Amino acid sequence: MQVLITGGAGFLGLQLARQLLKRGTLDIDGKPVAIAGLTLLDVVAPPALNDARVRVVTGDLSDPAVLAQAVDEHTSAVFHLAAVVSGQAEADFDLGMRVNLDAARALLETCRALHVKHGSRPRVVFTSSVAVYGGTLPAVVQDDTALNPQSSYGAQKAIGELLLSDYSRRGFVDGRVLRLPTISVRPGKPNAAASSFASGIIREPLAGVAANCPVAPETPLWLLSPRGAIAALARGMEIDGAKLGERRTVNLPGLSVTPKEMVAALRRVAGDAVADRVSWEREARIENIVGTWPAAWNTERALALGFQGDEDFDAVIRAYIEDAGIAAR
Amino acid sequence: MQVLITGGAGFLGLQLARQLLKRGTLDIDGKPVAIAGLTLLDVVAPPALNDARVRVVTGDLSDPAVLAQAVDEHTSAVFHLAAVVSGQAEADFDLGMRVNLDAARALLETCRALHVKHGSRPRVVFTSSVAVYGGTLPAVVQDDTALNPQSSYGAQKAIGELLLSDYSRRGFVDGRVLRLPTISVRPGKPNAAASSFASGIIREPLAGVAANCPVAPETPLWLLSPRGAIAALARGMEIDGAKLGERRTVNLPGLSVTPKEMVAALRRVAGDAVADRVSWEREARIENIVGTWPAAWNTERALALGFQGDEDFDAVIRAYIEDAGIAAR
Repeated sequence: MQVLITGGAGFLGLQLARQLLKRGTLDIDGKPVAIAGLTLLDVVAPPALNDARVRVVTGDLSDPAVLAQAVDEHTSAVFHLAAVVSGQAEADFDLGMRVNLDAARALLETCRALHVKHGSRPRVVFTSSVAVYGGTLPAVVQDDTALNPQSSYGAQKAIGELLLSDYSRRGFVDGRVLRLPTISVRPGKPNAAASSFASGIIREPLAGVAANCPVAPETPLWLLSPRGAIAALARGMEIDGAKLGERRTVNLPGLSVTPKEMVAALRRVAGDAVADRVSWEREARIENIVGTWPAAWNTERALALGFQGDEDFDAVIRAYIEDAGIAAR
Repeated sequence: MQVLITGGAGFLGLQLARQLLKRGTLDIDGKPVAIAGLTLLDVVAPPALNDARVRVVTGDLSDPAVLAQAVDEHTSAVFHLAAVVSGQAEADFDLGMRVNLDAARALLETCRALHVKHGSRPRVVFTSSVAVYGGTLPAVVQDDTALNPQSSYGAQKAIGELLLSDYSRRGFVDGRVLRLPTISVRPGKPNAAASSFASGIIREPLAGVAANCPVAPETPLWLLSPRGAIAALARGMEIDGAKLGERRTVNLPGLSVTPKEMVAALRRVAGDAVADRVSWEREARIENIVGTWPAAWNTERALALGFQGDEDFDAVIRAYIEDAGIAAR
């Protein structure tokens, strides 16, 4: 099978690519199918993966000419991960609309044109976000809780969900929308996501660097580890689309934890000196976005579909330390 | 004040224009404000209204040059009624996307550019539809029941809602989304809306013509009369945006009735000979769309905001007979 990952040079895209190459197959209709080719599409080139199955396409995803290089009628699995993150989409409205909405639509239109011409109907995994929710929410968010995004990022993701659902209903693609919890602990540098601190308050102290938590210590967050996210993306592709029923969206299982609990876990795993590197100065710009996201979720449907969350946040920190090659305490 | 109506040559647009010209004012912040100018924008020219306040712009709403003629920084009220109806949007996907999504976005972008340049922030009333709901629904639809459109029209309207909400949140416009029940009894000819029969089974028999009901007699419909719709549109513009709170969408009050009940009302109002002109041959294409729409609604919020529904369907038929100038039985 031919697989495409958009946002293939990003953190999740690269991790997913490495995992897929290592696995070598995806289970489709109950049978392992070999991944014959893996295309990574992004505005910047990813680091070399040194694998003959990998092909790199560099360019703007909203450009049909770029898409024509990345997708053809043989593409049977698309992971659409490319996105402008929440803080950036709030700061630059046009950029967010172009990448989060127009590029997603251009990708779906390309698939639709191929469907009309060749009858192809790729599985498309689209990553959405907790940011599609907001405002007054029930104590526990259900799969059918109404969307009410309070950020442009959330609105753009919600629109992408609607597009993918309608393109799926019409048979142009076989789509599945995974609403990802905030990924923590991300390696690397802070980014412009409003939730960047949810990795920073663990990653930076472990690297000997001070980090600030810009939200109240009791703010509930909904988290998934990078390992958990990669496993969920693969699972999302493998699910039989018919099992999704009338809703193409799945709220993935996460951990509901507060920054206070996260730093307590950091203290248990890495000690006082590390945990004490976290400061607690609140920033309204971040709180205004993150504070609208829900905290507790009913994930029965996701669990029934075979998705799994993380065990606890201590385990998440330990996995990060292992993956990042940090010397144990 | 300067008022724009998109879809100004359509049935609702024209009726609204006549009503606004007759009233002469809209209540804004508790005070009547004179309507100094009324622009009607549509792809076809409306009939002459013979009023010096009226200006007509003919062209494609998704064309920024056309929009530049229709909207400027003095436009303080926009009724965005232009749309491709449900059956047509299902039959011609591209047309639906262009009019129901791209044109709505182009209109909002024009308002945003004027806001950035001049600080203007028009009130925008956007008409949405029961078609944003679908799939398994609660017995009574609430304002916060999750959207799950099962038609391209419904998906496009849901996307328009999200856009208007985000543009409002960012302060580019002061938007309000009215989810209109199916309008019945519409005058004129059948149209490509899946719900066209909801007017046809009353209008055609009253004109001495046979009409078919393509859905089961017990299918629940959610209806609003043209008079009720026009009143709701004006009320939607007059509401203080702050009163809408965190959700810009309002489910308008309607009547929950079945075709069987509608024809019984027609029998009471116009007699057996008229009611017997209705036939009952089901059509899957129509049932597949209409059958996904919800039937019972909690409209407390709309009522608290000053919206009103119709008294009963007998009164709706009598009002239609009066407005259409049909001789009484």
